[in-house]
Amino acid sequence: MVGERKGRYVVALGGNALIPPGAAGTAEEQMLQVRGAAAQLAPLAAEGVELVVTHGNGPQVGNLLVKNELARAVVPAMPLDWCVAQTQATIGLAIQAALEWELRRLGTGRRVVVVLTRVLVDPLDPRRLEFSKPIGGRVTEQDATARADDRHRYAAQPGGGWRRVVPSPEPVAILEEAEIRHLLDSGAVVVAAGGGGVPVEEGAEGRYFGVEAVIDKDLTAALLARHLDADALVILTDAPGATINFGRPDQRLLERVTPAILRGFQAAGHFSDGSMGPKVEAALRFVEGGGGRAVIAHLDDARQALAGEAGTQVIQK
Amino acid sequence: MVGERKGRYVVALGGNALIPPGAAGTAEEQMLQVRGAAAQLAPLAAEGVELVVTHGNGPQVGNLLVKNELARAVVPAMPLDWCVAQTQATIGLAIQAALEWELRRLGTGRRVVVVLTRVLVDPLDPRRLEFSKPIGGRVTEQDATARADDRHRYAAQPGGGWRRVVPSPEPVAILEEAEIRHLLDSGAVVVAAGGGGVPVEEGAEGRYFGVEAVIDKDLTAALLARHLDADALVILTDAPGATINFGRPDQRLLERVTPAILRGFQAAGHFSDGSMGPKVEAALRFVEGGGGRAVIAHLDDARQALAGEAGTQVIQK
Repeated sequence: MVGERKGRYVVALGGNALIPPGAAGTAEEQMLQVRGAAAQLAPLAAEGVELVVTHGNGPQVGNLLVKNELARAVVPAMPLDWCVAQTQATIGLAIQAALEWELRRLGTGRRVVVVLTRVLVDPLDPRRLEFSKPIGGRVTEQDATARADDRHRYAAQPGGGWRRVVPSPEPVAILEEAEIRHLLDSGAVVVAAGGGGVPVEEGAEGRYFGVEAVIDKDLTAALLARHLDADALVILTDAPGATINFGRPDQRLLERVTPAILRGFQAAGHFSDGSMGPKVEAALRFVEGGGGRAVIAHLDDARQALAGEAGTQVIQK
Repeated sequence: MVGERKGRYVVALGGNALIPPGAAGTAEEQMLQVRGAAAQLAPLAAEGVELVVTHGNGPQVGNLLVKNELARAVVPAMPLDWCVAQTQATIGLAIQAALEWELRRLGTGRRVVVVLTRVLVDPLDPRRLEFSKPIGGRVTEQDATARADDRHRYAAQPGGGWRRVVPSPEPVAILEEAEIRHLLDSGAVVVAAGGGGVPVEEGAEGRYFGVEAVIDKDLTAALLARHLDADALVILTDAPGATINFGRPDQRLLERVTPAILRGFQAAGHFSDGSMGPKVEAALRFVEGGGGRAVIAHLDDARQALAGEAGTQVIQK
């Protein structure tokens, strides 16, 4: 089967693919913004590449948390895992509409489907108990204190104000993996595991419970790509790739790099920020785990990046 | 293939299956409440029946509209089609969790998957231009006037107050029908087309646009059941079935009825209310269109109803 196919790619859309810088994030803005990504990806799908598209949801889930707060006296607030699911639905709709339209313009009948995707986390994961990831907007210390309870913790932020903090555990398994596979085999482009996936834990009697956490979307994309035997993991963002000595005169974009060399740069602290760090780790995990190629590239360079001609290409040899 | 299978049912869950009477609709309440339906349906799935589960979303989408209003000065309100998609995600999660748990207790590994489902409506449908269906909460005349614009209309309600009114056009096609079929063939229980489906229209160049409308979930369920060649359409609600002379001393539950007889009662105005009317119409469309059997029954009687021993059984002969 590998020999027959044109390749299977998992593509992770982040940052500016979904909400333009400074925008509030109306549906119209999101629909319009995602057309850029769709125009880059549709030609691949039209050529027969098997495509799984995943995406971030930071600003969108932040907006839902604001709605929860502002309306909580009137209608019940939804738990964080349900909010993640809501963003899979809305962002999924936007990606689906844009990709389908581009595919139709290219004269192909390939279909696009959005699958609600849960991702298993381990209750004993140390990161499960570490309230490290800030989500939602800034509030005053007074509001933070008033709102805090067992499930809701807040932390003072650099630059002032307090934000809600949640654990960001490791993704362990994609619960809808088999269904994503079936849909890929049917010829559809599959939008899945958005926002890192709806985080669930396995409780007594094999029952799954949602948890108040967010999973890093790039780490989930790497897991998904490995489990689907993808030929490439493609992480599209608003930076041209992984850069060493970032912000210094000798800064340099890594163009083609082996996992061993990249691990070295990572250990030396070159990608310590919250954005490029997980992307590099995701790329490394995919290639170290046997994946052919991982790419980190700017959204606008997606086609060249997929062709191996832009961004940071992480390749075994 | 029909000969090999144990039967394919489309089951529509409404009303009390999802939010208990008088409850605000927290996630916990919805998760708990849906276990009743899951316990009734899981044994069928465990026996090998192919199952598509769809559901209403009235109170849930109402709550999202309230959040839109209360937060609109801070974060953008989402259009109605996106709100419907959000309810497919959250209610889908609740149904999925409950059904999977019951299936595991029964010792079967059958899986449950939630597919974001869009339903095509016709821009020339007369009902597309009729702002007839009230959604969301009651507001004052002053608020209604202030909020009204081209896309948002309000109407005075019997009993006082104003509510937003939207069109409720006919469902024309289930855009994810092929994917639902593939997933059924793979052995999964499929949760799809919740809230009547995300309403979309086809614009220029074959592009789909979301519309500010809601589609009746029972009519969508009937269309889905016909297109999937289901053996039965099962509409579960909080009434024991279709009743003639409702509220009069001679009221009578219809137990087994042909479409011709049921059309007669319908024409005589026996099911004129907003709840039973669409259910009867959906049952009629399914059986008149060639479906084997449609059932309208109380959720608590689901198993007997499926066995032909409770509710209103609409059968050709």
